[in-house]
Amino acid sequence: MTHSPLDPQQLTADLIRCASVTPEEGGALVLLDKVLSAAGFTCTRVDRGEVSNLIARWGDKGHPRTMGFNGHTDVVPVGDTNAWTVDPFGAEEKDGFLYGRGATDMKSGVAAFVAAAIDLVQTTPPDGAILLTITGDEEGDAIDGTTALLDHMDREGEQMAVCLVGEPTCPDEMGEMIKIGRRGSLSAWFTVTGVQGHSAYPHRAKNPLNAMVRLMDRLASHELDQGTEHFDASTLAVVTIDTGNPATNVIPAQTRSTVNIRFNDAHTGAELSDWLRAEAARAAKDFGVDIAVEIKVSGESFITPPGPLSDLVSAAVEAETGRKPELSTTGGTSDARFVKNHCPVVEVGLVGKTMHQVDERVEIAQIHQLKSIYGRILRDYFDQN
Amino acid sequence: MTHSPLDPQQLTADLIRCASVTPEEGGALVLLDKVLSAAGFTCTRVDRGEVSNLIARWGDKGHPRTMGFNGHTDVVPVGDTNAWTVDPFGAEEKDGFLYGRGATDMKSGVAAFVAAAIDLVQTTPPDGAILLTITGDEEGDAIDGTTALLDHMDREGEQMAVCLVGEPTCPDEMGEMIKIGRRGSLSAWFTVTGVQGHSAYPHRAKNPLNAMVRLMDRLASHELDQGTEHFDASTLAVVTIDTGNPATNVIPAQTRSTVNIRFNDAHTGAELSDWLRAEAARAAKDFGVDIAVEIKVSGESFITPPGPLSDLVSAAVEAETGRKPELSTTGGTSDARFVKNHCPVVEVGLVGKTMHQVDERVEIAQIHQLKSIYGRILRDYFDQN
Repeated sequence: MTHSPLDPQQLTADLIRCASVTPEEGGALVLLDKVLSAAGFTCTRVDRGEVSNLIARWGDKGHPRTMGFNGHTDVVPVGDTNAWTVDPFGAEEKDGFLYGRGATDMKSGVAAFVAAAIDLVQTTPPDGAILLTITGDEEGDAIDGTTALLDHMDREGEQMAVCLVGEPTCPDEMGEMIKIGRRGSLSAWFTVTGVQGHSAYPHRAKNPLNAMVRLMDRLASHELDQGTEHFDASTLAVVTIDTGNPATNVIPAQTRSTVNIRFNDAHTGAELSDWLRAEAARAAKDFGVDIAVEIKVSGESFITPPGPLSDLVSAAVEAETGRKPELSTTGGTSDARFVKNHCPVVEVGLVGKTMHQVDERVEIAQIHQLKSIYGRILRDYFDQN
Repeated sequence: MTHSPLDPQQLTADLIRCASVTPEEGGALVLLDKVLSAAGFTCTRVDRGEVSNLIARWGDKGHPRTMGFNGHTDVVPVGDTNAWTVDPFGAEEKDGFLYGRGATDMKSGVAAFVAAAIDLVQTTPPDGAILLTITGDEEGDAIDGTTALLDHMDREGEQMAVCLVGEPTCPDEMGEMIKIGRRGSLSAWFTVTGVQGHSAYPHRAKNPLNAMVRLMDRLASHELDQGTEHFDASTLAVVTIDTGNPATNVIPAQTRSTVNIRFNDAHTGAELSDWLRAEAARAAKDFGVDIAVEIKVSGESFITPPGPLSDLVSAAVEAETGRKPELSTTGGTSDARFVKNHCPVVEVGLVGKTMHQVDERVEIAQIHQLKSIYGRILRDYFDQN
């Protein structure tokens, strides 16, 4: 049996044409199921809630040498369609770029890995397994996405020994960065309640804004840490304070604020939550007001310390691009935060400049280069045995 | 010629039935014109812009012993009509109270003085003059109200030697307080502009909220003074901070706040404005953001120091109520802030508890008592010569 190799550019274009705005499947997973099944992968849809997910395995279930891949086919909304110069779901090719929502984030990453994996199993079938976990809910709440896939794996005895995540990881140039961890993220909502009154008689009121500004100033000026071995310093941003009082002669009863913290491995969400609550209690006491705090930890920080997996990925990136990638832990969150509970995980992808933007596009050469990187990682991984 | 004395309760009720919500004249000034003209007063309408005002004089123009009175017939809106248990313009009498918008603020005050003045000129015509300045724009912008009346007086050679303002001045009991001055009032609007960015990378953004909370905390914790001989301490209230950023992962570009200052005679509006601008500039420099400041001084502080006029008023209040009134400078602003440029001014009126509220009402006995107080002030004033 002979095969013509799968063109990752074509697959990226086909995926872009599936309008898979979270939580719409849009035909993307159906397409991958078809392509991977035809190449000998065992495909299973793992839908949960309103989310569609796909798991695809080549080789034996639970094989101790299973290279995993995690990616997503869902995309963020197109925003103002009139601002686009192309059809966001048209996959138009122009000046060496392929245009469309999801072009970089991350239909090209999924297509590149699928093409590399099919190439490998059809040309030099490895002594091991390959397991793809593709979710339709990375851009949304991520409750029924990668988590549902990992739950399914636990139930069914599916395993990955290591895992790549195909998110865009390079700020400007192919090969310059891979990610070995991410900071955690936490949001906190503060509601300060005092006693309303007339501006002319502040002593008869309790102005919640006095406590609010002191508390927010304390939080914003606090140095959480100076960075750790693999992480930048943790950061705290006061993102909004709102009161909605139009009357200059009225002291309001209540005001609200939101704070977002990105934290490294010097902290846990629980410890930061305790600190925020303690600071709120201190300000409440100082000013004689009530301060309610709601906190949501959307992800703890995690790291796959530099080691065999990052060495393998780095070497492949350097061989294909000529650049030795930085092992970074910067950026927002990704589904690697779920995968890290299962096995060592490294994120490696292309340049993410236009992700989530109008006229999102990918340089076509980068799709092929990424396929080569993934292909080399796969070969080197299985060759290690 | 004999006269039956004018009933101040009846006049208050008639005035309440005029729906004179600023800037509507509502028939109130027409009614006063008729009543006062019939009693021998020379009445002149001094309308300016959309505002109606009335000046009424008994005696010679420019007489060096002219007792002045300043009041207003306009009222604030009724608000939620359904929340009232009576017709806000019905002047319903119930359990010794007269109900309606303006019942305390201040149609009863106007009616009481008009009745007292008519009594005096009809029973014991004084060697002097009485000048009433009644405006239809005290509750509004006050641009074309008392100011227009004072401008008219300057042009026409009208004078007051001293002036009473008939605003409610007593917190709880008749006779407990008169006002010899008022604090000034100033509002300031701050707009802090930084650089928008992602919460995960605060060092690439410039968060305007960091500067805002530091600036507002500095302003709110600053002690302006500890009070002066006749005034309470000046106060500063941060009344609102608003940003309107719903995204926890976005550092906003801009945030706004409003501050209100009530200041005593230790300050001027100009000096406080300089201080606010200097603090804004300091925070702007510290945080590398832009801070725009808009300031409106709605009134400077003023005082008619204790002396002949307050002695006269105090003695009359004490004789009629048995209470020696406190000479206070508390409260918001009143049109006394304009009158004080013309002559010594003291505010003396009834209990203001329900002003601006639903079911505004005046105790009927207080209307008669206030007429007696005004009558005694008038008699004592003219008897002094």
